[in-house]
Amino acid sequence: MGEVINHIDNSSNYNGQEEEQGDPESNTLNQPLVKANRTLSSTPLALVGTKVSHIESLDYEDKKSCGGNRYVTGLMMFAGANLGLTLVSSVLCVCFAPTAAGPGIPEIKAYLNGIDTPNMFGATTMFVKIIGSIGAVSAGLDLGKEGPLVHIGTCIASLLGQGGTDNHRIKWRWLRYFNNDRDRRDLITCGSAAGVCAAFRSPVGGVLFALEEVATWWRSALLWRTFFSTAVVVVVLREFIEICKSGKCGLFGRGGLIMFDVSHVTYTYHVADIIPVTLIGVIGGVLGSLYNHLLHKVLRLYNLINAKGKIHKVLLSLLVSLFTSVCLYGLPFLATCKPCDPSIEERCPTNGRSGNFKQFHCPKGYYSDLATLLLTTNDDAVRNIFSSNTPNEFSMGSLWIFFVLYCILGLFTFGIATPSGLFLPIILMGSAYGRMLGGVMGSYTSIDQGLYAVLGAASLMAGSMRMTVSLCVIFLELTNNLLLLPITMIVLLIAKTVGDSFNPSIYDIILHLKGLPFLEANPEPWMRNLSVGDLGDAKPPVVTLQGVEKVARIVDVLKNTTHNAFPVLDKEEVVPQIELHGLILRSHLVKVLKKRWFLTEKRRTEEWEVREKFPWDELAEREDNFDDVAITSSEMEMYVDLHPLTNTTPYTVMENMSVAKALVLFRQVGLRHLLIVPKIQASGMSPVVGILTRQDLRPYNILQAFPHLKNPKVGKHNE
Amino acid sequence: MGEVINHIDNSSNYNGQEEEQGDPESNTLNQPLVKANRTLSSTPLALVGTKVSHIESLDYEDKKSCGGNRYVTGLMMFAGANLGLTLVSSVLCVCFAPTAAGPGIPEIKAYLNGIDTPNMFGATTMFVKIIGSIGAVSAGLDLGKEGPLVHIGTCIASLLGQGGTDNHRIKWRWLRYFNNDRDRRDLITCGSAAGVCAAFRSPVGGVLFALEEVATWWRSALLWRTFFSTAVVVVVLREFIEICKSGKCGLFGRGGLIMFDVSHVTYTYHVADIIPVTLIGVIGGVLGSLYNHLLHKVLRLYNLINAKGKIHKVLLSLLVSLFTSVCLYGLPFLATCKPCDPSIEERCPTNGRSGNFKQFHCPKGYYSDLATLLLTTNDDAVRNIFSSNTPNEFSMGSLWIFFVLYCILGLFTFGIATPSGLFLPIILMGSAYGRMLGGVMGSYTSIDQGLYAVLGAASLMAGSMRMTVSLCVIFLELTNNLLLLPITMIVLLIAKTVGDSFNPSIYDIILHLKGLPFLEANPEPWMRNLSVGDLGDAKPPVVTLQGVEKVARIVDVLKNTTHNAFPVLDKEEVVPQIELHGLILRSHLVKVLKKRWFLTEKRRTEEWEVREKFPWDELAEREDNFDDVAITSSEMEMYVDLHPLTNTTPYTVMENMSVAKALVLFRQVGLRHLLIVPKIQASGMSPVVGILTRQDLRPYNILQAFPHLKNPKVGKHNE
Repeated sequence: MGEVINHIDNSSNYNGQEEEQGDPESNTLNQPLVKANRTLSSTPLALVGTKVSHIESLDYEDKKSCGGNRYVTGLMMFAGANLGLTLVSSVLCVCFAPTAAGPGIPEIKAYLNGIDTPNMFGATTMFVKIIGSIGAVSAGLDLGKEGPLVHIGTCIASLLGQGGTDNHRIKWRWLRYFNNDRDRRDLITCGSAAGVCAAFRSPVGGVLFALEEVATWWRSALLWRTFFSTAVVVVVLREFIEICKSGKCGLFGRGGLIMFDVSHVTYTYHVADIIPVTLIGVIGGVLGSLYNHLLHKVLRLYNLINAKGKIHKVLLSLLVSLFTSVCLYGLPFLATCKPCDPSIEERCPTNGRSGNFKQFHCPKGYYSDLATLLLTTNDDAVRNIFSSNTPNEFSMGSLWIFFVLYCILGLFTFGIATPSGLFLPIILMGSAYGRMLGGVMGSYTSIDQGLYAVLGAASLMAGSMRMTVSLCVIFLELTNNLLLLPITMIVLLIAKTVGDSFNPSIYDIILHLKGLPFLEANPEPWMRNLSVGDLGDAKPPVVTLQGVEKVARIVDVLKNTTHNAFPVLDKEEVVPQIELHGLILRSHLVKVLKKRWFLTEKRRTEEWEVREKFPWDELAEREDNFDDVAITSSEMEMYVDLHPLTNTTPYTVMENMSVAKALVLFRQVGLRHLLIVPKIQASGMSPVVGILTRQDLRPYNILQAFPHLKNPKVGKHNE
Repeated sequence: MGEVINHIDNSSNYNGQEEEQGDPESNTLNQPLVKANRTLSSTPLALVGTKVSHIESLDYEDKKSCGGNRYVTGLMMFAGANLGLTLVSSVLCVCFAPTAAGPGIPEIKAYLNGIDTPNMFGATTMFVKIIGSIGAVSAGLDLGKEGPLVHIGTCIASLLGQGGTDNHRIKWRWLRYFNNDRDRRDLITCGSAAGVCAAFRSPVGGVLFALEEVATWWRSALLWRTFFSTAVVVVVLREFIEICKSGKCGLFGRGGLIMFDVSHVTYTYHVADIIPVTLIGVIGGVLGSLYNHLLHKVLRLYNLINAKGKIHKVLLSLLVSLFTSVCLYGLPFLATCKPCDPSIEERCPTNGRSGNFKQFHCPKGYYSDLATLLLTTNDDAVRNIFSSNTPNEFSMGSLWIFFVLYCILGLFTFGIATPSGLFLPIILMGSAYGRMLGGVMGSYTSIDQGLYAVLGAASLMAGSMRMTVSLCVIFLELTNNLLLLPITMIVLLIAKTVGDSFNPSIYDIILHLKGLPFLEANPEPWMRNLSVGDLGDAKPPVVTLQGVEKVARIVDVLKNTTHNAFPVLDKEEVVPQIELHGLILRSHLVKVLKKRWFLTEKRRTEEWEVREKFPWDELAEREDNFDDVAITSSEMEMYVDLHPLTNTTPYTVMENMSVAKALVLFRQVGLRHLLIVPKIQASGMSPVVGILTRQDLRPYNILQAFPHLKNPKVGKHNE
């Protein structure tokens, strides 16, 4: 499962200063390669990109010294290559798999809540996501690879669960045992955990992410299954790192397990630091919710543009790419050149593929701090900002430019039609804001600016995504500094609390924008005052079937309704009493028609007849389409015994049950249909007065039908 | 909340070699004090004990050189002081709070599953637990303080939830808003997380422990609430450490956040190490389940002894204490003296309160390795065994003696009547077994023996307790070495899988021994073939009340039944139809009798009458006792309108529902009562055919009533 994930991410941390490091100790696997955390390293995704290769070309041209003209050539090459990569990524997404655009996490969350987005977990989506993500990230766009990796993980899980792809005719029969809704749900949860693990190299963080953010239903067995998945990922990751240690992977180089290692850095903090820490949390929460608010507006605007057609989608992506390239290339000219500090061991200035202290337009012996941050991969930029004991390396002005640029890019890049993750853009913004705050607070506390940057990133993440435990562990596993834990926890909790008082989390906003009928964990207070009977009365009457039903009626019902399940009733002949036999699924009715399992007379069938005709693994498959079934008019007059295919024990609620309690039952037990039974059954009356589905229990839909509930007196909390 | 917890644990890691360390860097808060992991440090609990003080007295007598006699005196003082401490701890437990004995974790688990053990979370229990735990641990018994700390945490949480103690007349009115079952459950979950956090200084581990092992129902809100609790604990912990850094705490000294720090140690491991790692996991799983099996037998034997009376309980504790003292003191004589390695910087041999390389009976320049392990605190013994790059410090013979001794002590100490935790004994056993395995494998792999010890401890924990993610994080936070994570995960998963194939986890075994009706997450396969109707038929008929009921009938029902809830029925006068109005709780009936809310005629009351008489916070209180209510014979003839106090929307299931599905509903929604309604309601028939409680749904109880289900054909898994 972890294979494709690791194919992308197996061996990051390419150490550009390989030739300069004579110390064999630093090459061993058991400690992170980035021993001093100032050593730059790039992920393979980024190395494909043109940012790096352009810097090199600039370097060659430097010798000719042909004035301002060479910068124009440089910009054209830079922007051109970026445009090309964006084009590939965007065209793939637009033409072959529209579901591959964006992070994919909201759809995964929705799937685990019970909402299946079509074509979300197919093979095409996966391949487009992989190639598109490589393209988009290497084009230097302000996008992360984390969200896409999670989506890729779930695609692999889903394909394994289905036993192969439906379209490409690759099916393993022995995998069909997992082809049911429950196992598929579990597999997709494991896949998302594996994706986070691969993205951040954070096995425990992956498990917690799946638990806190992605999953709706959680069973104790799922805990150790996700844990097993991430264990496999992390072991495969280590193996790739070990193989690449010997230099066989070319540019991919060698890497360590910890991405932004700050474990060897001594951070000091004391009681008085509670004020700046609180400040970081509060500002992070405010900024995070502001970001959510603005992103919501931008995404609505983009929806309008994207709705105009495929060309508009691609053009929008190209426009954003061009803007990004121009900003990244042009803005460093605004920054002043800073003299190299001769006491630092690292080479300064550098022009190579990687390395700190980029020279760019500066004279010898000077470096451009903004170019160091902008003309590098996003990962390396984060590492630079997280670096500690470097209070003077980046000027406040450069940090401001960086922060504002990435705020703008973060808002306008996310909605374009390429695979894109939200994690890295937010980390970039947050770390810049944190470091700036550290600069402002400078004299007040003894906290290092690098620590401010880490905390700033954490606070903005919590302020926007509203996760706590999983973010905390992901940051722990990213930075490998356990002593930061208490302070990170406080910042996360404050930022989440502040953010929650303004708006919902960014994933909830996207879910809402996409119109996915997500079922929240807690019922609204006004749901206590509404009974399911009222809800059922507001709907068209329920469509029921007889225990032994005519084929014509079944065809009629299937053609004229879109319901997914129908109550099956039995009329007692002797006493005028109608009995509820159970609930039959639409897909089972379609199966019956396809197999032409018809009876010439009205009779009950034996159980063995059904067992022979319908094996359980076929019944587990979902099939809704029966257009290709031609039923003759003589067959139409025949009968079907629905009894053996009926679920005889559906969950039921009495009609006077409150919607709030019905919702708790619906969500906790993980239902698709909930039958409403009458409180008093009189002879001859139907034993079912309604059927509730997910759509019926959505607050938005209920408020449409019952507008007077919008401003109710909030009932006492006494459940 | 964390205050009392931290009172015990605030400032461990007493650094005994204070005067020898000139390096000021090692004293800063931001890195663990135990810089070289060979430096010994003791927890305050342990410093109270006599192990340490006896070693000192031996030191003084050493100068007199009066032969073997001084060892007898030493043994008597050692054993005497230990006996005294055990006596205090045991007498407190036996006489004042029998529920304070043992770890308390199984009872907490049961409480969160819905089973309230009386006197489990009271103030008396808490104080006895605190003092008893200090006594038992300092008496040198093979017990941990971890389980008791978890229990203390939940006691504090529960007391806060109740607004104070019931018996000691300390009640805060403003805290009464939490005095309902749901908030109390949440608070107790948070308390257990805080306890684990205080015990291991592991905030994330605490959250995961609460999630994986303790909690039955989990809501997303609970995740960040527990996280907040542990954040507070860890901040308070840090504050205490900072205060004690300046030496104000006397013997408590200074400490770091990480208990068994191995972060500065470089462990190397490669692909070939998969064999020893698998071996550790498999043996750990086998040993763990063997330990569970034997402990089960010992606990059953102890139950027989303890049932004989209080004196027997105390005598058993004293016997175990005496045996422990004699072994700890006598066994080091069996080990050969080892010459001190002059290349090591540490003082060797030592006789002081702490320090490595204990001299004991050896001549100058020699040390006794077994005395180093036995005549120290349990925490320090673990640190010694975890130490790396010390392949020759402990001889195989000494490790064997240590391992066998702690296996015996671990089995025979746990069941005595003192507060006792299981974590540390298992870590001690596991680390010794791991290090021995490392010695055996010595030439085969390059894995350090210290790493073997860490993995051995982890594997035995997983083999016995069957936790994965939480143990993994606890070990990560204990050892502060992120690079160990992949290997730890594999070991834990293997050990858990192996252990699960033999017997249930140790907590499940204890739950079963205590006879607590714990409701498992997954229904048994045979439950699919049994309907709740059959289950209801096997019980005595359900006791129902009328909507407007006579006082005499209510008193009669309360006196002659033990049910906690009664269905309320309404007879329609016109049509002969009986309607189910709802379910009324016993405690509300008792309230009605206490308040004498009687009506002279048979009529329905208004809602405002009820609101005035019964404020919601009073209704939330549980009151079952109505012996002090004297009802006159004229009152007996009066009526009560039960309608307003009835829960009108109880969850119901049809009588043909399978027990498996009813159990899922019962557990997922967290019910106490589930009504069984008939499939067909005929006129004049009761609309309730039965009522299911937790006891009815226990597999054991069902099998008693339906013995033919014991060996059923296992049904197809098609839920």
